[in-house]
Amino acid sequence: MIVVMKPEATTAEIAAVLRKAEELGVSTHPIYGETHTVIALVGDLTNITREVFDAMAGVQKTVRIEEPYKLAGRTTHPADTVIEVHGVTIGGPEVVVMAGPCSVESRQQIVETAIAVKEAGARILRGGAFKPRTSPYSFQGLGLRGLEYLAEAREVTGLPIITEVMTVDTVPLVAEYADILQIGARNMQNYGLLHAVGKLQKPVMLKRGISGSIKELLMCAEYIMSNGNYNVLLCERGIRTYETATRNTFDLNAVPVLQQLSHLPVVADPSHGTGKWELVGPMAKAAVAAGADALMIEVHPDPDAALSDGAQSLKPQRFADLMEELRRVAQAVDRTIASPTPLAEERPQAVVLG
Amino acid sequence: MIVVMKPEATTAEIAAVLRKAEELGVSTHPIYGETHTVIALVGDLTNITREVFDAMAGVQKTVRIEEPYKLAGRTTHPADTVIEVHGVTIGGPEVVVMAGPCSVESRQQIVETAIAVKEAGARILRGGAFKPRTSPYSFQGLGLRGLEYLAEAREVTGLPIITEVMTVDTVPLVAEYADILQIGARNMQNYGLLHAVGKLQKPVMLKRGISGSIKELLMCAEYIMSNGNYNVLLCERGIRTYETATRNTFDLNAVPVLQQLSHLPVVADPSHGTGKWELVGPMAKAAVAAGADALMIEVHPDPDAALSDGAQSLKPQRFADLMEELRRVAQAVDRTIASPTPLAEERPQAVVLG
Amino acid sequence: MIVVMKPEATTAEIAAVLRKAEELGVSTHPIYGETHTVIALVGDLTNITREVFDAMAGVQKTVRIEEPYKLAGRTTHPADTVIEVHGVTIGGPEVVVMAGPCSVESRQQIVETAIAVKEAGARILRGGAFKPRTSPYSFQGLGLRGLEYLAEAREVTGLPIITEVMTVDTVPLVAEYADILQIGARNMQNYGLLHAVGKLQKPVMLKRGISGSIKELLMCAEYIMSNGNYNVLLCERGIRTYETATRNTFDLNAVPVLQQLSHLPVVADPSHGTGKWELVGPMAKAAVAAGADALMIEVHPDPDAALSDGAQSLKPQRFADLMEELRRVAQAVDRTIASPTPLAEERPQAVVLG
Amino acid sequence: MIVVMKPEATTAEIAAVLRKAEELGVSTHPIYGETHTVIALVGDLTNITREVFDAMAGVQKTVRIEEPYKLAGRTTHPADTVIEVHGVTIGGPEVVVMAGPCSVESRQQIVETAIAVKEAGARILRGGAFKPRTSPYSFQGLGLRGLEYLAEAREVTGLPIITEVMTVDTVPLVAEYADILQIGARNMQNYGLLHAVGKLQKPVMLKRGISGSIKELLMCAEYIMSNGNYNVLLCERGIRTYETATRNTFDLNAVPVLQQLSHLPVVADPSHGTGKWELVGPMAKAAVAAGADALMIEVHPDPDAALSDGAQSLKPQRFADLMEELRRVAQAVDRTIASPTPLAEERPQAVVLG
Repeated sequence: MIVVMKPEATTAEIAAVLRKAEELGVSTHPIYGETHTVIALVGDLTNITREVFDAMAGVQKTVRIEEPYKLAGRTTHPADTVIEVHGVTIGGPEVVVMAGPCSVESRQQIVETAIAVKEAGARILRGGAFKPRTSPYSFQGLGLRGLEYLAEAREVTGLPIITEVMTVDTVPLVAEYADILQIGARNMQNYGLLHAVGKLQKPVMLKRGISGSIKELLMCAEYIMSNGNYNVLLCERGIRTYETATRNTFDLNAVPVLQQLSHLPVVADPSHGTGKWELVGPMAKAAVAAGADALMIEVHPDPDAALSDGAQSLKPQRFADLMEELRRVAQAVDRTIASPTPLAEERPQAVVLG
Repeated sequence: MIVVMKPEATTAEIAAVLRKAEELGVSTHPIYGETHTVIALVGDLTNITREVFDAMAGVQKTVRIEEPYKLAGRTTHPADTVIEVHGVTIGGPEVVVMAGPCSVESRQQIVETAIAVKEAGARILRGGAFKPRTSPYSFQGLGLRGLEYLAEAREVTGLPIITEVMTVDTVPLVAEYADILQIGARNMQNYGLLHAVGKLQKPVMLKRGISGSIKELLMCAEYIMSNGNYNVLLCERGIRTYETATRNTFDLNAVPVLQQLSHLPVVADPSHGTGKWELVGPMAKAAVAAGADALMIEVHPDPDAALSDGAQSLKPQRFADLMEELRRVAQAVDRTIASPTPLAEERPQAVVLG
Repeated sequence: MIVVMKPEATTAEIAAVLRKAEELGVSTHPIYGETHTVIALVGDLTNITREVFDAMAGVQKTVRIEEPYKLAGRTTHPADTVIEVHGVTIGGPEVVVMAGPCSVESRQQIVETAIAVKEAGARILRGGAFKPRTSPYSFQGLGLRGLEYLAEAREVTGLPIITEVMTVDTVPLVAEYADILQIGARNMQNYGLLHAVGKLQKPVMLKRGISGSIKELLMCAEYIMSNGNYNVLLCERGIRTYETATRNTFDLNAVPVLQQLSHLPVVADPSHGTGKWELVGPMAKAAVAAGADALMIEVHPDPDAALSDGAQSLKPQRFADLMEELRRVAQAVDRTIASPTPLAEERPQAVVLG
Repeated sequence: MIVVMKPEATTAEIAAVLRKAEELGVSTHPIYGETHTVIALVGDLTNITREVFDAMAGVQKTVRIEEPYKLAGRTTHPADTVIEVHGVTIGGPEVVVMAGPCSVESRQQIVETAIAVKEAGARILRGGAFKPRTSPYSFQGLGLRGLEYLAEAREVTGLPIITEVMTVDTVPLVAEYADILQIGARNMQNYGLLHAVGKLQKPVMLKRGISGSIKELLMCAEYIMSNGNYNVLLCERGIRTYETATRNTFDLNAVPVLQQLSHLPVVADPSHGTGKWELVGPMAKAAVAAGADALMIEVHPDPDAALSDGAQSLKPQRFADLMEELRRVAQAVDRTIASPTPLAEERPQAVVLG
């Protein structure tokens, strides 16, 4: 860490900073410049926050040199983390596609969609049972019933499922059904929830908050990991900027940046990222080209009738076409995407929906 | 609501929108322009979200005309809400000052600070017992012990206390001690928590999220109110922008905007808003001039040694001086701020700290 | 356009809006809702700004339905614009790569770089002779000498050149040398300059301002086009957001959005967009996958010694390798990128640098 | 400046940085930390940009310690700059109010407004003759005729005038009429224009760009000052953020921040800053309370009929009432605002408008 003193800082103020640093067990290297004195601190600074020094008299600012995350960062863990979910490998050469509706709306809707996305090559089924909604008057999800329908869809298709958990008290329930737990953007810094999923051993996909910085996203991964759960996926899903032509600004730059800073797999969600289905195709292809380890794409059999986020959902046929295009882009960057898998081939038994 | 069709929308697509609207029980008024057809919807649209139409084929965009909040908005509740907390009235002619340290660090620290701010004219004591921190390795608050110390400080000074609640499971505990519960910026959209405090009858101060829009803040207040708790205070505490000269961009404009849109009292927090103690004075005065109903100001007896947010804390003497300046500004806008209250005068018994 | 009246708007205020609209020659369609009256305006609204109504008593807000740009928009000009520059076609199936140094620094530097990028498959040479710099104490470009060196590099390689013009008075000089004139991000809304280049017939590449919205970018293109110059290229080069992990937030979403709204070719500049050379490769590939019509990439023979923006420049060998990767991605999305062109093959004469 | 090396930086890369710094004439202080080597540079770094080092191999980032502005900064010029304009002193104890319409629309409009604002206590008349407009189809100002009308209004009222200059070629013309030249937000980084007004000796008011950082604003002031013109006023007028409840986010924090960093007077423009007349009153009072040296307020005799920005303009009577309120706030912070000045008292001759 570097502590920059104000030009008018007194000798006593400089001495106080030196003393404080030594109390904290780090060594100090003061440099006396023409206008400012600068104090470099050397040692283990992980547990020392900048604010300790920011608040001291005579200090102009502090600059952190070391990464504040040690478990999530690449410095101490150079090799890529690879996460296995029931035979699906995330973080390896395959670009894993997670697909499904925003919300689980009915047994038929989720099973039909699951079959369609499976046949198009998706490897993981997404669907929300508990939905965070801006308005208290909007559809809030089917809850437990939604989880049960998801489990049925998994039964029929063999696809592992990812679904969001919103509150600490529902973590055990959601963990019972989900193969991957999703922490949504609004809860990125819900530390109680991060602690709770950190106690599990199931994979957790952590979405970047709508104004979360890349560093904050990594610090939130650190919260989960410091509780013992190292199976964390990072997900870019659009940030809030001044631009209103898209619902969010899908920050694709975060994909290579996160891969440089961290060993965790990176997921790109162009559906929430852009909020418009016309943009999902171009930005999904861009995400694969930029090196994303997985994609999350919303697919709904009838977007016009969707209870949430229909505007950003693809119809199954369009999704299948997009998967073809994505395979070509993946190949061009030496990655793969699973081939279409007609369900009949591997599961000859009739699918009966009661 | 207005539904704007694309220039290339077909007659069938327009008919589908008209049909959907009628199914939802609202009347429709199509207008056929030179390039676009526009459909105005009239009726009770509170429970109809824009996305219902955004997802339909041929729709370019939708525009909401009505406020999506009915309990928090001024349209259906024109008179100002006034909240009483043990004899302190928020939302009336007095500008109520809440002051105290960011975190409760020890019995002595909080009691001493409470006495100092009380004597300077503060009416409510703030202090965090549960602290949301960016790093899992930072001080996370004293928890229950912090609540007990706050209660002691209240005992000594008579000041009601406001403190943050971070998780659903600690709502009963915090509600047992606090006179006002604070929902922090990171939890503005933690809907489980909003539900939980909505079941209480104690006042709740809801902080604007770091990238929360003014409309979202009102929708989050609506979450609390729709659960039955109408005692909500709205708090501006700085938003995230590109500017780095201040820690956040304290958006003082939100004060008059919120007062136009809502009947709820508005609190300004220049300490978190700017993140720098040198700016707290000018921006606190500005907040009073702009019409804030209350201020929240961080005061710490020894900011250099504070365990959190020392850089934005005032020392007690500087706070007392600022209160003098604030009284003059309040008077210039026909408001009042409580006079200094030497504690001895009203509480002759010795204050003994064990 | 839609004019939304306030709930408390009086009959006289509504009548005034109706009268004003009729004075302006547009027809009016008032709809009387439960809380608000809404007035739809139908007719030619291109020259009527929203502010005419925004300022009227009783008006809550206005919503523009029509595009405010008529020359740049796709509605009235559905077919893609294709721009020819000395045998290079921008806006067709080929993804055109423009490459070269940020600044022209010497004859040798620009000629060497031109040869290197030509051999790697670039079709247009970039290089700044007049440089907008944040500090008045920074290198401001070689000016006329820089233009002369660019012309020499064109002579040697046959590559057309693109270079920035910063002021109205240098438009004739720059136009004499450049094949494409660039309007930089800081000058996107320098209307005097837009007028001046609008009088030329040479192509103009207009960069999105650092906080320019997509709609504003199109309105600035409209400024150029309304002066008679229809050869406009739109360039995404990164916007300003709260994120500091990248120098700018390269908003790749703008590529498909601009292509939907406009017929003009879209250029992506991942070098300025991200500000870091490590990110240029992934984001250049992403830009091709997302459908960009051209790329602008900074290449410098010795980035460490560059007088500007070295941190975002690629070395020639790395650029040549990237071009190989880009060709594969282009092919995967049914586009092409020019093959490597050893200069000797087409220009057998010795290159003599005096 | 501090140069932070990457953890994996080689000895040769570190040596190259040391060598480069020494070539540039600054002394070097390397500190070898646990993960990073950090090199502190000491000496005159004004003309050395961070990018010199940012581009070097092995460098992770650079941090500037010194201010990059020397003429605009307070470090080398601690005393406040006071600017005199025909008997009006800006930067002293008086808070100077500049008022008038956004655009000059007719002789009668500007003279009437000038009389009204003068009588209410304004000290300087504002009015645009050359108007930067987002659409090429909007009213672009009266040009020379507008300047002549402004001069007439000055003749009648004695108020000095401030008006915008947009292009280098009109600088002499505007300078002939204006007492203060205004550089608008869109031109903050139009360096050709900054050079041109830097050659004048007339005061220049420089508006912060819509996404200009405080540091960039000071660097743009440095451009003007480094050309010899030290009479620069800095103006906060709202920045672009994600919030849409206000047209811009008026960043009042910039007032005290600029006053800390710079000796130049600071003007606040709540009319453009918020874009809504209802917010001008509260935010103007807030600006005075926060310490602004001057205010710029839009006043129009008939905002409904204004050709630009009517929505943010006050009617003369409302302006006069606001001035009364501002006087009280000014007094509360030990500043003054000029008293109302019935024109008849000092100018007995009839005002004849031809």
